[in-house]
Amino acid sequence: MHQGNRTDIARLGEFGLIEHLTKNIQLKNPETLYGIGDDAAVLHFGEKQTLVTTDLLMEGVHFDLVYTPLRHLGYKAAMVNFSDIYAMNGKPKQITVSIALSKRFCIEDMEEFYNGLQLACEHHNVDIVGGDTTASLTGLAISITCIGEADKSEVVYRNGAKDTDLICVTGDLGAAYMGLQLMEREKAVFQGDNQAQPDFAGKEYILERILKPEARKDIIELFRTKGIKPTAMIDISDGLSSDLLHICKQSGVGCSIYEERLPIDYQTAVMAEEFHLNLSTCALNGGEDYELLFTIPLSLHEEVSTWEGIRVIGHITKPERGCMLVCRDGAEIELKAQGWIALSE
Amino acid sequence: MHQGNRTDIARLGEFGLIEHLTKNIQLKNPETLYGIGDDAAVLHFGEKQTLVTTDLLMEGVHFDLVYTPLRHLGYKAAMVNFSDIYAMNGKPKQITVSIALSKRFCIEDMEEFYNGLQLACEHHNVDIVGGDTTASLTGLAISITCIGEADKSEVVYRNGAKDTDLICVTGDLGAAYMGLQLMEREKAVFQGDNQAQPDFAGKEYILERILKPEARKDIIELFRTKGIKPTAMIDISDGLSSDLLHICKQSGVGCSIYEERLPIDYQTAVMAEEFHLNLSTCALNGGEDYELLFTIPLSLHEEVSTWEGIRVIGHITKPERGCMLVCRDGAEIELKAQGWIALSE
Repeated sequence: MHQGNRTDIARLGEFGLIEHLTKNIQLKNPETLYGIGDDAAVLHFGEKQTLVTTDLLMEGVHFDLVYTPLRHLGYKAAMVNFSDIYAMNGKPKQITVSIALSKRFCIEDMEEFYNGLQLACEHHNVDIVGGDTTASLTGLAISITCIGEADKSEVVYRNGAKDTDLICVTGDLGAAYMGLQLMEREKAVFQGDNQAQPDFAGKEYILERILKPEARKDIIELFRTKGIKPTAMIDISDGLSSDLLHICKQSGVGCSIYEERLPIDYQTAVMAEEFHLNLSTCALNGGEDYELLFTIPLSLHEEVSTWEGIRVIGHITKPERGCMLVCRDGAEIELKAQGWIALSE
Repeated sequence: MHQGNRTDIARLGEFGLIEHLTKNIQLKNPETLYGIGDDAAVLHFGEKQTLVTTDLLMEGVHFDLVYTPLRHLGYKAAMVNFSDIYAMNGKPKQITVSIALSKRFCIEDMEEFYNGLQLACEHHNVDIVGGDTTASLTGLAISITCIGEADKSEVVYRNGAKDTDLICVTGDLGAAYMGLQLMEREKAVFQGDNQAQPDFAGKEYILERILKPEARKDIIELFRTKGIKPTAMIDISDGLSSDLLHICKQSGVGCSIYEERLPIDYQTAVMAEEFHLNLSTCALNGGEDYELLFTIPLSLHEEVSTWEGIRVIGHITKPERGCMLVCRDGAEIELKAQGWIALSE
């Protein structure tokens, strides 16, 4: 929450607030014909296909304002939607932004939220084209819808994975989950002792992963450059296990992934050790990674091995083989949507 | 809220609930290539332009579940978005539906909400293509985004009204506001005395107007049939005054409307009398009418006079004339966004 001058939202009213927050918004995309200011935005994609995704974020469920700056929240709220469009192998083009807010928020709070939102949109070349601003009796609610585009031949669904395809994941996993654990711990310390200062030194990466995730535009551009189209793709929001199971279920296939191949940053490993958590569980089920999980034909094995920041973690199998994790000791365990290793600890 | 068997949502979980609610959804529009089940829906409008509008409804602010059946809420939540697309002279084609709900809701509640939603979509030939279902710590939050289409030459903005244009309004005004007052009164009575039965006889119309509004698809079809395109249009959600001021501001014009021309149903008039409210105030500022307010060239005066259910209420003027209401006694009062007559009572 904003710490300096706090201007009551009632001073502007709903229309005034919307105008204040959106007056500097400039449209960047030729597909955006008309943005904020009418009953609906007007877009035109011509021969391209239109992609639509939406997310609803609720205070206390998806974010805790004790440790989430509103600027970061705005950035992340946009980013998680861009991530869904990239997961279709498309480009995000427009968003609508609806906010319900209670009286404890001031205009400066909303400015910070919009600053984060606009920064995310600048990085990804997205136009803010509409939305709704309204009152809430209790917490903050944020609903963002993102519209993107892709050539018909480019769209990648979850249902195209085939036997022997390689399973690839970008970046590393489990860091956002560890960042969340760290912030929850420091919050508890802070609430017990107001003099306590949080100790975040050396933990910047995992904090950034939870507070300011970055959707993988670069990977989609890499696919274009290399002329490669994945057979199936999803973004990792619920956790690798859960999202890989979506691909397998929708493609009607099984999979084998290897525990030793899971990409994990050293800060994630250090924190898991500190919290006495099983590191593989964090990587498999942590969620909120916003990395891309995709499958490509086996014939691309050599090619993909040379791509920086992309790890082959296993392969697709026939459906009767099930969805398996091959542990370091060679044992095979069935992948569950969440928490299976936690149970075995 | 559902009164019979109540099934805990935890029995299905998030993915299970979504699957349960959406399994019977069938796509109707050829423009909808892929609906629920991936990271984003896939649409294609070709040469048509794409329209996007969104609304966020919060429990306690936009609706009161004491007197709003969830089935009606679902119907209305969809309808208010369709109304925005019609107000652009377009056709709604798809919606995404996000819901945040607390533990006090059961699966049957959500089924009723979806029943209403699907009924609205059937009436208006709209596909449900995605959404988000999540938890809320307190009340119910509903966010709907509607996507529509229109030929480039058909889109009607708020900014095209010209001097001497006729100002027209569909249906009648103020009824939803009176319906709301009635329900609030009966709620207060009920809370004071649990034996009291609400008395709604002869008041069905105003109740239907607030609980189950109908977006004016028929008017858009009439425009097509007659080959007529309004110069400006908006749907009346905030109240005639407020919405007419949007048209005038964005078109850079003034207006004169006539109190005696305001279309008002007799049930609205009876209730206003009963509540000692100024009837014109209710019609001008009540809001939630979801009627269409539009302007057409003066040359169409004879034509529009023959259209059933459409009333010419005044005309556009030069901007220096201001935005005026001509009262029954001939006095002119400046239109305000809300409550100006209330102040003078």
